[in-house]
Amino acid sequence: MGAIWGNKLKLSIFGESHGAGIGINIDGIPAGVKLDREYIEKNMQRRAPGKNKLSTQRKESDNYEILSGVYNEKTTGAPLCILIRNEDKHSKDYLKLKEIMRPSHSDYPAHIKFNGNNDIRGGGHFSGRITAPLVFAGSLARQILKDKGIVIVSCIKKIGKVEEKKEDYSVSDFENLENKDLSVFDDTILEKMKTEIEEARKNQDSVGGIIECIIFGLKAGIGNPFFDSLESTISHLAFSIPAVKGIEFGKGFEFAQLHGSNANDEYYYSNNEIKTYSNNNGGILGGISTGMPIVFRVVIKPTPSISKKQRSINIDKKENCILEIEGRHDPCIVPRVGVVLESIAALAILDQIL
Amino acid sequence: MGAIWGNKLKLSIFGESHGAGIGINIDGIPAGVKLDREYIEKNMQRRAPGKNKLSTQRKESDNYEILSGVYNEKTTGAPLCILIRNEDKHSKDYLKLKEIMRPSHSDYPAHIKFNGNNDIRGGGHFSGRITAPLVFAGSLARQILKDKGIVIVSCIKKIGKVEEKKEDYSVSDFENLENKDLSVFDDTILEKMKTEIEEARKNQDSVGGIIECIIFGLKAGIGNPFFDSLESTISHLAFSIPAVKGIEFGKGFEFAQLHGSNANDEYYYSNNEIKTYSNNNGGILGGISTGMPIVFRVVIKPTPSISKKQRSINIDKKENCILEIEGRHDPCIVPRVGVVLESIAALAILDQIL
Amino acid sequence: MGAIWGNKLKLSIFGESHGAGIGINIDGIPAGVKLDREYIEKNMQRRAPGKNKLSTQRKESDNYEILSGVYNEKTTGAPLCILIRNEDKHSKDYLKLKEIMRPSHSDYPAHIKFNGNNDIRGGGHFSGRITAPLVFAGSLARQILKDKGIVIVSCIKKIGKVEEKKEDYSVSDFENLENKDLSVFDDTILEKMKTEIEEARKNQDSVGGIIECIIFGLKAGIGNPFFDSLESTISHLAFSIPAVKGIEFGKGFEFAQLHGSNANDEYYYSNNEIKTYSNNNGGILGGISTGMPIVFRVVIKPTPSISKKQRSINIDKKENCILEIEGRHDPCIVPRVGVVLESIAALAILDQIL
Amino acid sequence: MGAIWGNKLKLSIFGESHGAGIGINIDGIPAGVKLDREYIEKNMQRRAPGKNKLSTQRKESDNYEILSGVYNEKTTGAPLCILIRNEDKHSKDYLKLKEIMRPSHSDYPAHIKFNGNNDIRGGGHFSGRITAPLVFAGSLARQILKDKGIVIVSCIKKIGKVEEKKEDYSVSDFENLENKDLSVFDDTILEKMKTEIEEARKNQDSVGGIIECIIFGLKAGIGNPFFDSLESTISHLAFSIPAVKGIEFGKGFEFAQLHGSNANDEYYYSNNEIKTYSNNNGGILGGISTGMPIVFRVVIKPTPSISKKQRSINIDKKENCILEIEGRHDPCIVPRVGVVLESIAALAILDQIL
Repeated sequence: MGAIWGNKLKLSIFGESHGAGIGINIDGIPAGVKLDREYIEKNMQRRAPGKNKLSTQRKESDNYEILSGVYNEKTTGAPLCILIRNEDKHSKDYLKLKEIMRPSHSDYPAHIKFNGNNDIRGGGHFSGRITAPLVFAGSLARQILKDKGIVIVSCIKKIGKVEEKKEDYSVSDFENLENKDLSVFDDTILEKMKTEIEEARKNQDSVGGIIECIIFGLKAGIGNPFFDSLESTISHLAFSIPAVKGIEFGKGFEFAQLHGSNANDEYYYSNNEIKTYSNNNGGILGGISTGMPIVFRVVIKPTPSISKKQRSINIDKKENCILEIEGRHDPCIVPRVGVVLESIAALAILDQIL
Repeated sequence: MGAIWGNKLKLSIFGESHGAGIGINIDGIPAGVKLDREYIEKNMQRRAPGKNKLSTQRKESDNYEILSGVYNEKTTGAPLCILIRNEDKHSKDYLKLKEIMRPSHSDYPAHIKFNGNNDIRGGGHFSGRITAPLVFAGSLARQILKDKGIVIVSCIKKIGKVEEKKEDYSVSDFENLENKDLSVFDDTILEKMKTEIEEARKNQDSVGGIIECIIFGLKAGIGNPFFDSLESTISHLAFSIPAVKGIEFGKGFEFAQLHGSNANDEYYYSNNEIKTYSNNNGGILGGISTGMPIVFRVVIKPTPSISKKQRSINIDKKENCILEIEGRHDPCIVPRVGVVLESIAALAILDQIL
Repeated sequence: MGAIWGNKLKLSIFGESHGAGIGINIDGIPAGVKLDREYIEKNMQRRAPGKNKLSTQRKESDNYEILSGVYNEKTTGAPLCILIRNEDKHSKDYLKLKEIMRPSHSDYPAHIKFNGNNDIRGGGHFSGRITAPLVFAGSLARQILKDKGIVIVSCIKKIGKVEEKKEDYSVSDFENLENKDLSVFDDTILEKMKTEIEEARKNQDSVGGIIECIIFGLKAGIGNPFFDSLESTISHLAFSIPAVKGIEFGKGFEFAQLHGSNANDEYYYSNNEIKTYSNNNGGILGGISTGMPIVFRVVIKPTPSISKKQRSINIDKKENCILEIEGRHDPCIVPRVGVVLESIAALAILDQIL
Repeated sequence: MGAIWGNKLKLSIFGESHGAGIGINIDGIPAGVKLDREYIEKNMQRRAPGKNKLSTQRKESDNYEILSGVYNEKTTGAPLCILIRNEDKHSKDYLKLKEIMRPSHSDYPAHIKFNGNNDIRGGGHFSGRITAPLVFAGSLARQILKDKGIVIVSCIKKIGKVEEKKEDYSVSDFENLENKDLSVFDDTILEKMKTEIEEARKNQDSVGGIIECIIFGLKAGIGNPFFDSLESTISHLAFSIPAVKGIEFGKGFEFAQLHGSNANDEYYYSNNEIKTYSNNNGGILGGISTGMPIVFRVVIKPTPSISKKQRSINIDKKENCILEIEGRHDPCIVPRVGVVLESIAALAILDQIL
């Protein structure tokens, strides 16, 4: 289980890293939406590996084929299914791993859950590659949201020790961000982050980071109390992204040391519009949008695939061993996750407003 | 929407703070479970207000009536519904608030969403009081889990500026914790936290905090990849608790500055059992349990209801105003949330293993 | 399981015939609907037993208490939960049945499923009494539908050997039907049906029947292909009503001997409106409404509780035995089921159009 | 919507008749099931058209490609997705139909629902061809059920005026049925049914029928009260099959004229096993299996695609017109639906017992 998500918009994902292909079936996309192929392609490229030295040299062709739900470049209202064929598979790199559980990967718990039947090659169904179909779905969702004035962006807040502190953005701040190697505002900080990643690579190591995502233009009154709160919905999807280990909204963990008097977002009228002086709650109260930008951050753990020698176990021989992972790995996946986060945010919001 | 949750165990909550009552309908509890009334009562008491100076002086009788699903003190397998009548309501305290949106409360987004029809008294359906039925359901779930060797505990990590750093607990460490005013291990730190709360109260203010929850005894292989990952399931429910604004698993946000080489949890055999040297991933990999304790932390924002004057708006008159909230408020709800967190953790796990 | 239904409108039922009470929690009712208490009461009365000689002499007070979701007689948008207390319980009548499985009742499969823990008194959670909360929910749904021009009616087509053949009704035909003892158009047929029921009662027996339900005013384009077809949705709910054993739409089982040329509903324009010369498909094609009235029929099996001696088993003693059921039973529940059918039809439609 | 079904087993279908292909994504199939390709192929063939004169001469290659979830011919536990490419498409046959609504097809309500964006060619997503993936999924389900002693069969009860009356089958009765042109026991009746079909074809017409499905070997205690009753679950799926317009369990519509005394299924012990003298309830009481065979019948309406001239409308020109459908059509789809019915029955049962 775990392949299906959604209420009014329903997603169903499939695929394993080294099988025939990966894909997604999307039910509930309104009929008559004209596909913006260029926009979709741009987003797919933002996630794809092999673009520059900062990511793995593995080439993944993320060319998708539309199997259903589109006629004359417009959605038909029927389920929209896409397929991305797997290519450039180095399955042999993985076969020797079959018995050796890679630390901090899904190998061991998946081996137990599926009684050794799971396809281990490239992480199988647990591969981060499965997020490519999510980016397709998210791009379609973002097209629809854009028509309603809703724009979703992201930026990198931290990689390793290097942090960028910036708040109170406007949409226009993000215009040039996508063309940079890393979505960081200050170029000096950007270079320092690149150095962090480069050093991790040289050390046969990897490094983590923090990404912030902002949803502009969502009006007040969207969401629900309790089980379908906006935070519940967004976090549910965010933790579907491999490597995400934490999420916080607005001031997040900083709230612990705040007092009500400096944490509360006070209201005022500005030309008959209701605003708050601050946005500490990240645009959500009682699970419902306030009309202020939705702001949340996720932490990405360092890629578990590192070339350094690690202690592990051979589960068939039932003995300890030393593992040396070959293959081509990302020293830092943070730069590639931003667009995935924007995608799931779009899917979460679209499901609520359809 | 937002009242229903679950797959194999289904919850359906209802109630408003000042209506006839609040409750929960639970579908999927196995037949034949003998209720441990004392255990349920103890948990309900941990959440209830009015126990000591640390919480509101409001008395809420959380006496529950079982409406269905129990016969001769055993579950029948039919839906189990409980009702908690509302008492000690000071509705008049709230009526003057009807037009004035309390900052950082749900008042404003709820007003927009429900077109002014929501019951504003005591926060209505958005009240933290709705967590009482969740504690009932969670207690029943914990009874069932305990029989399978699964024990769930929590402790306070931070209140305001005061923090307790402690890791690598065992179950027995928690034995005396529930009898303390605050579930903190070091009594010196405990007193400092009490002072933080006391000062917030004196200043007509409130203060936030961080709670850690640990699930001991869950074997490897429970959970799912992607949309039904353990992290997705737990976070979904955690954000259903009013005032939770962030969640992290294992090292959480600290992962950002770690490298794969010190973040990865390496495996070894210990008497034919598979263990990891560290538990940075908080017992979850690929959305599935590893057999190590599940560890997560949530941040609780400071109670938005404070007696200090605040700037706000009168939504009927469409003008700015100054708000002075009367009534009896919690300066810090952190001490009461621990048992709620344990309850939702139990419900999340039970839904996965039924 | 089995207590939860719905997508945009979510129902959660609870209760056992001789427990504290029965009820329903409804999530998703729009905010601001003013309750029409008189209309609800009228519908509740249509289902209630004890009205005349045609039904059981058992008196069930179906007085409901609204626990949540209503403020100043208007829905708040929060979950609306009602409770109907159980009264006039003759539990002793049932206690001797605990070990003896009543033929064609749920006793035996429920005993196996719940391992003997189910509350057997009055059928427990399997009692037809649980349909009372469905009538409440349906009445609320019908109020909302009526404002959109959708009206739902029903009539009895058959009781025992007596049948009323009538087609091509208009809404106005049904105006006086609710005031009759049986919702039958022709009074001669009505009397014959009453005789069928009376004879069944005299013979300590029971008798079945067929009810037709028609939904007027649903515009074209509502519903879905495949898994959420209107037929799937309506039949799913119809089979939730105890005693329903078959359902057919439009010509239903008669279609078997029809040819395409006389079964197909041909289109024509009538004043720019699209109509069909016939309505053999009962207003549904491809799972979606055509704009013609939705027509379906269900069959109700004869009440299994009869006073006649029956062969059965004592499941504790593991031996055959003779069963003589005491208590007060309906010789025919068909007259009481009509309003339940209308209610679930309303809930099915409202879930699709919300 | 309408593409997703299931609780513990989740199905997600996609595809349009003349698009790239059709398929299904199945989540929840246990890991380690070895595919029985021959068995799957045999079932796919039973549904496929073009086998003999009784069905359309359209050739549909139902060759499926497994995209995910299978490794070394065994299920991996990850979602299993298959794709069937569309071939032998005569799209031009359909293009002239774009504006003309075929009577009793989904064309008109789909046109309204999807605002004219639906792919009309070959019925698009509403095509009966989408049942091919269901047969794949059902075959896999039946493999798993067979290992638990559960066997599902079907036979034709009626085509046009020709009926076969037979009850109280045993599994072995069905052994030779699949090799016949029509799954009918008596060869004289079989020939008469063939004549019915042949005459319909000669008249450029079509004819309907009734199919019975029996589930042998399901033990008592499977199913649920109310919303997830076995009848609800099976009927929900049955009405997902295009052309099904009615379903009845056990005695079905005959119950209307029965009395409790001859309708009730009385119990007895037979060598310590609990049985009933009759099986009028078709193996289901209170929504739960009784251990007797599950018996249900569905009616299939005559194929709406007939070559005879029909009255219809041109929806673009907004005028009445005469329609003459070209192309190759089934005079009777009843023979091809049996295996689809067995498939959905298997999926319904597997979802309940996983």
